Amino acid sequence: MKNKYFSILPIGGVDEIGSNMTLIRTENEDIVIDCGLLFPYEECFDINYLVPDFSLLDLNKLKNIIITHGHEDHIGGLAQLLAKIPDIKIWVTPFTLHLIKKKLEEFKLTFNYQVYEPEQEISFESIDITPVHVNHSIPETNGIIIRTKERHWGALYISDFKVDLNSKHEAPIRLDFIKNKLSECQKTAYFIDSTNVIFDGKTTSENELIPDLENLINRKEDRVFITLFASNVHRMNAICHMAKASGRKLVVMGRSLWNYMEAARESGHSDLLLEDFHTPDQVKGQNGRMLIFLSGCQGDFLSALRRFSYGEDGNFKPQKGDLVIFSSKVIPGNEKKIFRIYNKLTQFGAEIITAYDHLIHASGHPGKEDLRILLNSFSPNFYFPIHGESYMLRKHQEFIQECFPSIKSTVIHNYNEIILSENEFKVESHEVKEPVLIHGKNLVIEKSQISQRRKMATQGTVFITYQRKTKTFDISLLGLPLMAQDHNEQLIKRLTHQIENDLANRDATYFKDQLKISTRQFFNNLLGYKPVTEIHLI
Amino acid sequence: MKNKYFSILPIGGVDEIGSNMTLIRTENEDIVIDCGLLFPYEECFDINYLVPDFSLLDLNKLKNIIITHGHEDHIGGLAQLLAKIPDIKIWVTPFTLHLIKKKLEEFKLTFNYQVYEPEQEISFESIDITPVHVNHSIPETNGIIIRTKERHWGALYISDFKVDLNSKHEAPIRLDFIKNKLSECQKTAYFIDSTNVIFDGKTTSENELIPDLENLINRKEDRVFITLFASNVHRMNAICHMAKASGRKLVVMGRSLWNYMEAARESGHSDLLLEDFHTPDQVKGQNGRMLIFLSGCQGDFLSALRRFSYGEDGNFKPQKGDLVIFSSKVIPGNEKKIFRIYNKLTQFGAEIITAYDHLIHASGHPGKEDLRILLNSFSPNFYFPIHGESYMLRKHQEFIQECFPSIKSTVIHNYNEIILSENEFKVESHEVKEPVLIHGKNLVIEKSQISQRRKMATQGTVFITYQRKTKTFDISLLGLPLMAQDHNEQLIKRLTHQIENDLANRDATYFKDQLKISTRQFFNNLLGYKPVTEIHLI
Repeated sequence: MKNKYFSILPIGGVDEIGSNMTLIRTENEDIVIDCGLLFPYEECFDINYLVPDFSLLDLNKLKNIIITHGHEDHIGGLAQLLAKIPDIKIWVTPFTLHLIKKKLEEFKLTFNYQVYEPEQEISFESIDITPVHVNHSIPETNGIIIRTKERHWGALYISDFKVDLNSKHEAPIRLDFIKNKLSECQKTAYFIDSTNVIFDGKTTSENELIPDLENLINRKEDRVFITLFASNVHRMNAICHMAKASGRKLVVMGRSLWNYMEAARESGHSDLLLEDFHTPDQVKGQNGRMLIFLSGCQGDFLSALRRFSYGEDGNFKPQKGDLVIFSSKVIPGNEKKIFRIYNKLTQFGAEIITAYDHLIHASGHPGKEDLRILLNSFSPNFYFPIHGESYMLRKHQEFIQECFPSIKSTVIHNYNEIILSENEFKVESHEVKEPVLIHGKNLVIEKSQISQRRKMATQGTVFITYQRKTKTFDISLLGLPLMAQDHNEQLIKRLTHQIENDLANRDATYFKDQLKISTRQFFNNLLGYKPVTEIHLI
Repeated sequence: MKNKYFSILPIGGVDEIGSNMTLIRTENEDIVIDCGLLFPYEECFDINYLVPDFSLLDLNKLKNIIITHGHEDHIGGLAQLLAKIPDIKIWVTPFTLHLIKKKLEEFKLTFNYQVYEPEQEISFESIDITPVHVNHSIPETNGIIIRTKERHWGALYISDFKVDLNSKHEAPIRLDFIKNKLSECQKTAYFIDSTNVIFDGKTTSENELIPDLENLINRKEDRVFITLFASNVHRMNAICHMAKASGRKLVVMGRSLWNYMEAARESGHSDLLLEDFHTPDQVKGQNGRMLIFLSGCQGDFLSALRRFSYGEDGNFKPQKGDLVIFSSKVIPGNEKKIFRIYNKLTQFGAEIITAYDHLIHASGHPGKEDLRILLNSFSPNFYFPIHGESYMLRKHQEFIQECFPSIKSTVIHNYNEIILSENEFKVESHEVKEPVLIHGKNLVIEKSQISQRRKMATQGTVFITYQRKTKTFDISLLGLPLMAQDHNEQLIKRLTHQIENDLANRDATYFKDQLKISTRQFFNNLLGYKPVTEIHLI
């Protein structure tokens, strides 16, 4: 009887978009789904990723991780996980394996892996896990079907998907398969993607983008530039074929695009050859029809798109007659960076086409109609929105409640353990652990230190060395208005006065504290704010 | 004949949204339109405004500034302008005057002003200036008609407007008046708002919002919270009446809302009395129907909305059964802050309604159909898009070229002087001066210093004092991972070794430089990046 049960415990990806990681717990073993990174809400000064806290993981029970697909919010924390559990077995499909290998090479990490096929049943001691093909914006994306051995419970976990019934690039989501597998179970629960749930309609198919993309690529301009999410290799591959048919040379600017295309070629998702592509160097100064791919559609600081748009690329500079296509969306938070790029390109005379002008981008996540198709195919007993911010989870739950009232839908949070037992579920809450910040050499940096950085950035820094013997000051001002330098004498006068009158025989700690207080007060009078102040007393 | 000419010279607000300031130059006198602030593109660490550089202003010729309306991007730089030209006469309407008084009181500045009425001709030596009422999202917004004495040239300058022919709150834009005034001129030029030009349709009328707002305010929930742009006092006033009719007490949280309502009351744009409003203190702990206004619809750090949403307000905490209405849009760049607020409110159990769910926000700027109405009423000879980023200016120009081919439309930039002379215009380019950053006590801070702040924020800071005599180190690490502290001994060993071997008899500058290089290298090996390093040598 004990094997009738298992539980699902998200430790990332619920109430937030990113750091997806979900623990499946059974009596004798644990299995984890994905291990991704998260982009921080608050400005963390170039530290742009966090990974889940692993302290809840039971190292004795956790031997397997199943990767659903290769997006960074699903694989970006693997290096940190391997540091903790070096011999964990990573279950993965071929395309995703290429991406993970590339990633972990950078960290000089080796790893155990096992390649799986969708629809292949993976048998564990008390549960069977069956990945199932779903549509998404990256190849080889899988939902996960989890069933107890006696088929008392069955769960479907799909963190990312859309319903694309007519894609030229990949088979449609296997709704029939999901239905067959779950119909064998007495009780069923769904854990489903909330990212795009505020969209009322049906998410656009990749196919629907073809006409507009083709028209643009066939235009008369010699130089057409295009940026897109590098992981969308189906679209990139399709665009390459359009460009070749239109007599264009293919040029690729940006390492991430090369990496993804390499993974696509090696795992059968692209029929193009390495020789079909050119580096910017190879075509520098050439004329004629070209399609130039630019990585960095979100305007990232060091990306090819940004470098090109700012006129800082050695091989290509924007000019009148250039067409620049944004086959992408703006991820919230990146608007200013991307608008700046539009402006820069416009100033150089280039023409810009975005998804606002033409149908050239499709989301990878389900709108309400996609969810309806999923649930019309098979309706579970229980339903839990995942993969989304709190607001989306709630909207998702309300939609299910309203349109599928026979399904019991519940909003859950990270560190809520959903225990599927007997005929109902229980929720057990565990202590919430915040994701940890990673910076530089894969090192954790504490929140207190980020807050110190924020203070230095907003108020500047003052560094003073005072020698008690010689009564002399060394003063350094960092990040203060230049006029502040002119007041150093005044500051020294004030501090000297204080030292002579109040601090003469005081101990070092008191002495330093008082100098610090006075210095901050001095600058507050001068500037209207108190810089971070550090005193060395000799 | 010399009085046949004048020129228009934008020094802010073109190729950018914000810091609107335009110089009208005539032979013997200059007049400026507006003086606003700009929010920076790049992260400037809490420094969130810039003002135009005033170095091009000719202090002998500039005695008058005309304010079109009271938004911060039109009046936010007045304190800095008055510091330079204390006796400049500010032409202003009553409502805007209240706002400016409030603002300059904070800076303890007095100023000369002259109240004007729309449609009142203001006569200068060689030109006549006639403000004309237009619709916008703040009361008392004016376009500016500029005509030479002999009516050889006429120009219309409207930096912000929409066409709202059916507003209950204010009269429609005076298209007839514009037509009459400009018909008297031989040659005409328009300078027109580009903010919303990528929108193909007609901008929503304030009136169209009434049904949905009314439905929401009439809902059964006792506590309805609403946030909106504080300057939209017409909407706020309308909402107050809906709330009163629905038996709700009016509560206002946030100083900016009080300020704008005060200005509205005192200049006849609100028939509500001070007694109609309650402070949060006055209703604390009370039950019953309320409408609580929250300032800070963009999620600003210290705003009432954010404080409330995070559960940090002493009087109101979000709870199940609360309805929170966002009668506003998300300004690009603020998405993350605002989504965070949606999430926080959801986590407390409040229900959120945004302009995505209901028709409860209208832009103040013209869509393409608004522009069409303007130009169908009167068609000028020349046309210059202003008030928008480069990308919008281009889209605006393309729209005019396509739909009004008889109008000569031209993209211009800040510091382009458009000289309207004889029957054509000439463009003369002046050296571009970047807007200046203002921080703390109304002080300019240099870009180099912002860049220093950025370095400290992204890489942390190391302070070292070394005494040559005693061979001792004092080391402070700010904003580095805490583990770095554990390596101080190792750092000292390395530096000591270097000093003994290579630096023994070197001069102070070389000595310091080498210590700095070694220290940065040490941390680069340890952390993967080089902190800002400052050495004091004793």
